[in-house]
Amino acid sequence: MNKKNILILNGPNLNLLGTREPGIYGTTSFEFFLEELRGRHPDATIAHAQSNHEGAIIDKIHEAGDPYSGVNGIILNAGALSHTSIAIADAVAAIAVPVIEVHISNTAAREPFRHHSFLAPVCRGTITGFGLTSYELAVAAIMLEK
Amino acid sequence: MNKKNILILNGPNLNLLGTREPGIYGTTSFEFFLEELRGRHPDATIAHAQSNHEGAIIDKIHEAGDPYSGVNGIILNAGALSHTSIAIADAVAAIAVPVIEVHISNTAAREPFRHHSFLAPVCRGTITGFGLTSYELAVAAIMLEK
Amino acid sequence: MNKKNILILNGPNLNLLGTREPGIYGTTSFEFFLEELRGRHPDATIAHAQSNHEGAIIDKIHEAGDPYSGVNGIILNAGALSHTSIAIADAVAAIAVPVIEVHISNTAAREPFRHHSFLAPVCRGTITGFGLTSYELAVAAIMLEK
Amino acid sequence: MNKKNILILNGPNLNLLGTREPGIYGTTSFEFFLEELRGRHPDATIAHAQSNHEGAIIDKIHEAGDPYSGVNGIILNAGALSHTSIAIADAVAAIAVPVIEVHISNTAAREPFRHHSFLAPVCRGTITGFGLTSYELAVAAIMLEK
Amino acid sequence: MNKKNILILNGPNLNLLGTREPGIYGTTSFEFFLEELRGRHPDATIAHAQSNHEGAIIDKIHEAGDPYSGVNGIILNAGALSHTSIAIADAVAAIAVPVIEVHISNTAAREPFRHHSFLAPVCRGTITGFGLTSYELAVAAIMLEK
Amino acid sequence: MNKKNILILNGPNLNLLGTREPGIYGTTSFEFFLEELRGRHPDATIAHAQSNHEGAIIDKIHEAGDPYSGVNGIILNAGALSHTSIAIADAVAAIAVPVIEVHISNTAAREPFRHHSFLAPVCRGTITGFGLTSYELAVAAIMLEK
Amino acid sequence: MNKKNILILNGPNLNLLGTREPGIYGTTSFEFFLEELRGRHPDATIAHAQSNHEGAIIDKIHEAGDPYSGVNGIILNAGALSHTSIAIADAVAAIAVPVIEVHISNTAAREPFRHHSFLAPVCRGTITGFGLTSYELAVAAIMLEK
Amino acid sequence: MNKKNILILNGPNLNLLGTREPGIYGTTSFEFFLEELRGRHPDATIAHAQSNHEGAIIDKIHEAGDPYSGVNGIILNAGALSHTSIAIADAVAAIAVPVIEVHISNTAAREPFRHHSFLAPVCRGTITGFGLTSYELAVAAIMLEK
Amino acid sequence: MNKKNILILNGPNLNLLGTREPGIYGTTSFEFFLEELRGRHPDATIAHAQSNHEGAIIDKIHEAGDPYSGVNGIILNAGALSHTSIAIADAVAAIAVPVIEVHISNTAAREPFRHHSFLAPVCRGTITGFGLTSYELAVAAIMLEK
Amino acid sequence: MNKKNILILNGPNLNLLGTREPGIYGTTSFEFFLEELRGRHPDATIAHAQSNHEGAIIDKIHEAGDPYSGVNGIILNAGALSHTSIAIADAVAAIAVPVIEVHISNTAAREPFRHHSFLAPVCRGTITGFGLTSYELAVAAIMLEK
Amino acid sequence: MNKKNILILNGPNLNLLGTREPGIYGTTSFEFFLEELRGRHPDATIAHAQSNHEGAIIDKIHEAGDPYSGVNGIILNAGALSHTSIAIADAVAAIAVPVIEVHISNTAAREPFRHHSFLAPVCRGTITGFGLTSYELAVAAIMLEK
Amino acid sequence: MNKKNILILNGPNLNLLGTREPGIYGTTSFEFFLEELRGRHPDATIAHAQSNHEGAIIDKIHEAGDPYSGVNGIILNAGALSHTSIAIADAVAAIAVPVIEVHISNTAAREPFRHHSFLAPVCRGTITGFGLTSYELAVAAIMLEK
Repeated sequence: MNKKNILILNGPNLNLLGTREPGIYGTTSFEFFLEELRGRHPDATIAHAQSNHEGAIIDKIHEAGDPYSGVNGIILNAGALSHTSIAIADAVAAIAVPVIEVHISNTAAREPFRHHSFLAPVCRGTITGFGLTSYELAVAAIMLEK
Repeated sequence: MNKKNILILNGPNLNLLGTREPGIYGTTSFEFFLEELRGRHPDATIAHAQSNHEGAIIDKIHEAGDPYSGVNGIILNAGALSHTSIAIADAVAAIAVPVIEVHISNTAAREPFRHHSFLAPVCRGTITGFGLTSYELAVAAIMLEK
Repeated sequence: MNKKNILILNGPNLNLLGTREPGIYGTTSFEFFLEELRGRHPDATIAHAQSNHEGAIIDKIHEAGDPYSGVNGIILNAGALSHTSIAIADAVAAIAVPVIEVHISNTAAREPFRHHSFLAPVCRGTITGFGLTSYELAVAAIMLEK
Repeated sequence: MNKKNILILNGPNLNLLGTREPGIYGTTSFEFFLEELRGRHPDATIAHAQSNHEGAIIDKIHEAGDPYSGVNGIILNAGALSHTSIAIADAVAAIAVPVIEVHISNTAAREPFRHHSFLAPVCRGTITGFGLTSYELAVAAIMLEK
Repeated sequence: MNKKNILILNGPNLNLLGTREPGIYGTTSFEFFLEELRGRHPDATIAHAQSNHEGAIIDKIHEAGDPYSGVNGIILNAGALSHTSIAIADAVAAIAVPVIEVHISNTAAREPFRHHSFLAPVCRGTITGFGLTSYELAVAAIMLEK
Repeated sequence: MNKKNILILNGPNLNLLGTREPGIYGTTSFEFFLEELRGRHPDATIAHAQSNHEGAIIDKIHEAGDPYSGVNGIILNAGALSHTSIAIADAVAAIAVPVIEVHISNTAAREPFRHHSFLAPVCRGTITGFGLTSYELAVAAIMLEK
Repeated sequence: MNKKNILILNGPNLNLLGTREPGIYGTTSFEFFLEELRGRHPDATIAHAQSNHEGAIIDKIHEAGDPYSGVNGIILNAGALSHTSIAIADAVAAIAVPVIEVHISNTAAREPFRHHSFLAPVCRGTITGFGLTSYELAVAAIMLEK
Repeated sequence: MNKKNILILNGPNLNLLGTREPGIYGTTSFEFFLEELRGRHPDATIAHAQSNHEGAIIDKIHEAGDPYSGVNGIILNAGALSHTSIAIADAVAAIAVPVIEVHISNTAAREPFRHHSFLAPVCRGTITGFGLTSYELAVAAIMLEK
Repeated sequence: MNKKNILILNGPNLNLLGTREPGIYGTTSFEFFLEELRGRHPDATIAHAQSNHEGAIIDKIHEAGDPYSGVNGIILNAGALSHTSIAIADAVAAIAVPVIEVHISNTAAREPFRHHSFLAPVCRGTITGFGLTSYELAVAAIMLEK
Repeated sequence: MNKKNILILNGPNLNLLGTREPGIYGTTSFEFFLEELRGRHPDATIAHAQSNHEGAIIDKIHEAGDPYSGVNGIILNAGALSHTSIAIADAVAAIAVPVIEVHISNTAAREPFRHHSFLAPVCRGTITGFGLTSYELAVAAIMLEK
Repeated sequence: MNKKNILILNGPNLNLLGTREPGIYGTTSFEFFLEELRGRHPDATIAHAQSNHEGAIIDKIHEAGDPYSGVNGIILNAGALSHTSIAIADAVAAIAVPVIEVHISNTAAREPFRHHSFLAPVCRGTITGFGLTSYELAVAAIMLEK
Repeated sequence: MNKKNILILNGPNLNLLGTREPGIYGTTSFEFFLEELRGRHPDATIAHAQSNHEGAIIDKIHEAGDPYSGVNGIILNAGALSHTSIAIADAVAAIAVPVIEVHISNTAAREPFRHHSFLAPVCRGTITGFGLTSYELAVAAIMLEK
């Protein structure tokens, strides 16, 4: 098996991870976690991008979805935009690269407006509620894919 | 009748036209279609802009809506943002230049969340479902306006 | 290109055009407009029928949809029945001749019960809000069809 | 005061009055009641029409609404169509002659689908629940109008 | 036929009649109208009460509903409480004296929260939209009752 | 047992049976099926009527419901009107002759607006989804009735 | 165990008990029942108040909720106000004395608007449907409280 | 035609048939009816099972749906579970043997929560409201199937 | 008064009482409470059954509802099934023995899906929110019944 | 600028301020706050009234709305009645004196039934969530008005 | 790290895996997959149970949730019961052992009634849409837990 | 008291203030108003930023929310995004600096989609409907905060 190229794409407010509402999101910064994750997955090249702009997330999905990008899988935590952005869902549906939706918190146990995701139906699968481990499981899912 | 200045403004994912879900959106790229359209309408100057950013679309509408812009009509296909963006609708309502809403696909025949448009009530009119011909009819509508 | 046969089919209350709620529907009678329209489209034979009876509209659609009718396209303004008649929608879905839904007023800017059309999902496309020009654009749409 | 011309217009199933569900609608036939009503109102000419066809009711409203018809007021019991016909409501809104909505039974005390009337907002007023006396009160309302 | 005793019971804000929102409620004060009404109905004794207190209206209904009160009919315009007070509806249902619901304005043509009345299902009938004439028709309805 | 008189009453678009959406409705014309049906039921006289007009269907129900009509049972496939016509439901409720609702397709497996029938609660029973056999079972139901 | 002070607080229309809708509420007057209840509970002092005024009920709750009132428990049958009064619910939530909600009839088996109670979530518990015995069980509940 | 094997599968409370709410369900016990039914259909082997357990009904459907079971058709009256059990619907969808949904009472004429069936969309067809004759018609439907 | 036979029937998860979510359900096991309850009610024979199976609860209700069972009253805490099981409600409605619905916690103060009970409308009455005392009050209710 | 006359009008349960749910409403009594407020605003005469009676609040609004009352602005905290009383909203709409809606707590962060206010659309503006400072800001708003 | 004990608990119809709707659920039987899974996780003891009975699933959860069971994690695919069973959710909430919800198919991309899960809010996390790999990821999640 | 640092953050279309829909938003440009506001508040440093981009607003909130930014309060008029952006609400919830929501127009008196704000529950308070004075009151609220 060749090395796989994975893009982790984080949406609004996830740049604050480690400082924002630690009761919900924990105290680890994403950069720190990412280093560990890369260490545990030498068979994968894991890129990371974050933006608070819906448009920038769509641009990134298009780019990664380009047949010549070499990306094997996208791990997408669109944060609050999961619940409101049909445009991101359309971008996911428009590309051939598989996209996995992840959430750090258990969105089903929070406010009702976090219970519905426009992204879920167009993603390969969804992993929710395992803290930062949600990303780790998504990497595993991509690695297991033949 | 003087030449008319028309701005075609395309929203998220419409840059993928021709490659994205061809069963729904066809296989013609927008640039190719635009050349033909301009050829068939020598009495019009047809500008074109596309963005995946809601904010950029609002900026463009403000600019085209400026009394000194010389724009006679805007043809707006806001894509998925049609169904979620009150902010774009407010931009349309804030300017005096007429705006025509177009859609390539028949949105009423797709998912329920595509059945409602925040833009429709503030646009001059709506043209939906004719493929790229929707744009052509919108140009005709602007040209017919006295 | 041969001449095309087009049927304009108007539903309830459209016989009052020119006198009914002129603020919404304008002051031109449909007959007057039709003469002008025919003058501008010598390459088309444009028939016209109007009825206040849902059943009569269905009968007309069946008749025009008959493979031997020679009709190339139907322009259907079912008026208020657009929002309540599944039976007309079934008639449209049952025939092979393309049907274009038109509305004179911008129905999305009026009462909520005018926002949904049972006809839209089964029509080729929808043109709404351009006054009588909606019909003109529908004729153009049929003429552009190959 | 001159004699007033009043049209009583009855919708579907009201031809069965006197035999249909007497627990709800009573046992008097409409013709019998009409004779008495005319006897009590020598200062009014009271015409009567009934149809089970929505289209025929619209035709009648148009006819009575014609400025040359001489009709001073319409008493409309559209029966079940009150709850489903936007087309009849549009016809009422399209004419200048005042229309009064009446119901024999207390519709608010029956099935939920009888609680909403599309006609009520466009009629002058509504009289519900007094049995055939509802018509009598509507005649009184027209006679009291200056 | 003996004289009939009628109680007109007005709810919140109806004491302002003649000064409040004259576009909706007219410019005649209720007292002035009442004098005229009494003059036109020498065969009836028409009492009148108004309160802005839901509880006081219930008290009045109980009192008038007492078998020894001698009241033959209540004309009830509960104003805004019609749309919110189940307690008044229960009071109406608890007595044997017939109650007629009246409204000055056409509530069906106003805000959605005025479209539903808790009182309608338990009243004898409802008269809506005729201005002060609504009360006059209600008096007629009681006088016509055998 | 005497011969029974049965009326099969078909609503909008059922005149197209055999040609309309054969994937849903099959390829047999109703006339052909009717001949076979009559052949299999010599103990019944089976009349047939079809109309695209709601009013005509009501007229037919009234006629068949007349105590002197001699009709023992009505098999009603009101098509799309099943989902929208309270007026037909009222007609069914107004007569004493039993009415059986049938549908060719499995309406519960189609669009949501076909899941509710105004007719079902007032009919004797409902048979849905067996193709033309739905009519055959309805005939059996009437024959089994004592 | 010392004697306990209990306040029974009855809302609108409960003064009519024994005469109002006896099929639902029985034929015993509340005063008669109260005498019996007091006789069976010598270990309790049972006060009683009734009002048709929401405001008066709130005043009473405040008074009984005063730390110096000596009241050990309130039995509250707010009648129809249970379904509409957030203000009474706020009064219950604002005091420390436990409040028990009772209903004579089985509200869940009546009209839908009686199925929801604003009071239930802020009361200690709810007892519904046992006729006047509901009050008796509420007294027992207060007596059993340590 | 060979003999057909039919399984009648009855859900919760149908074991009480003949004693439970006879106004709705009649006074005949199912066993008695079954004997008669078998007598009238010598060309069919009709097995019968009843359970108050959702899981047991699913087990039975799996068993009958086994390709080697020899069952030609299942007649399923899941009673109240029709309105709540997605799991039974999934079992029906998972097997190839045709399943016919039957109901003794006219569910559309009863409480709103009985108007929707999770089973209807995955069954071959539905027969509702004919009393025990519903089963008889279902047997006929299976026998008519080629 | 003879001794009364009472069946306490507990639904899913109530076997965990005393260990499950003690903040909501307390720390007393049901068996311990039952001993005390029996001690306080020598005039009653109190049987107890618990099951996590909806079907088993229905079976028990049928058994206790048998005219020869000698059971005078059922105290039913169906737990979560109260909110989802129409089948249990049908079982309750099918028997003549009175059933009292109890809940330990104040369901109205918990998640919205616990606010509606299918059982409430068919039970004699409902007692909610008094902890285990809810059962005690239900026993009292049965003992008070004549 | 002359001194301005301001009426602060408080609704149900606000008399308990300082003792009721201090976590939500704070521990300052309204009288104490009022003294301070008056001290800080020597250019205003600030009257205060509180009632638990909807009717009394309407009476007060009418009185303050009288053209001769000299009141320049009303600060209205109707408490729970904000969410249920159309009658108070009608009173506000009926007078010319500007009314400002205030809330102590952040109602949008509390139970859903506190999210909607009937008063907001008819008030000049709304100030919510600043504790007692909400009143202070409302005074400022009136003083800033020209 | 010691070996971990994991229970995989499958709900209704999952015994059919490999034969049921292979387009949705694949063609691998669960037993075959389980063997492979165990082979890949020698550090875990993976037990498996399946039932079509809601009650049996609750019993199993109680058993595994017993403090002495030694189970470290439950992987729960409750199938259709995920969408309807509050009772299973209560069982999950009642135990301390972490439960992970898995689904084979992408439930968000299927019928609306599969979009909501009563289990999700009370589970540690949810993994949806990866085919049988969903179970594998859940095992990984338990193994990663410290 | 030291000088306070305040950031006024304006969302989409608020750059058009003074020219856009003057009937709703007035004719004063925001820059002109800002100069006056600063003049009236020498004890505050008032920064101002506007963007039509949701992402840019989130970036700004993060920046101002940085513990080292020195900002004492944010006045946020997110315009149309108030009704659609959960992402901005999450940004507000993620920082410790208090945020006050303001609106120029009375949003409760406009279209229904402007009645709900995702921001309100996470802001300190909300000030709506006072024109540009809404900002002035928000400055006062921050200055009054201790």
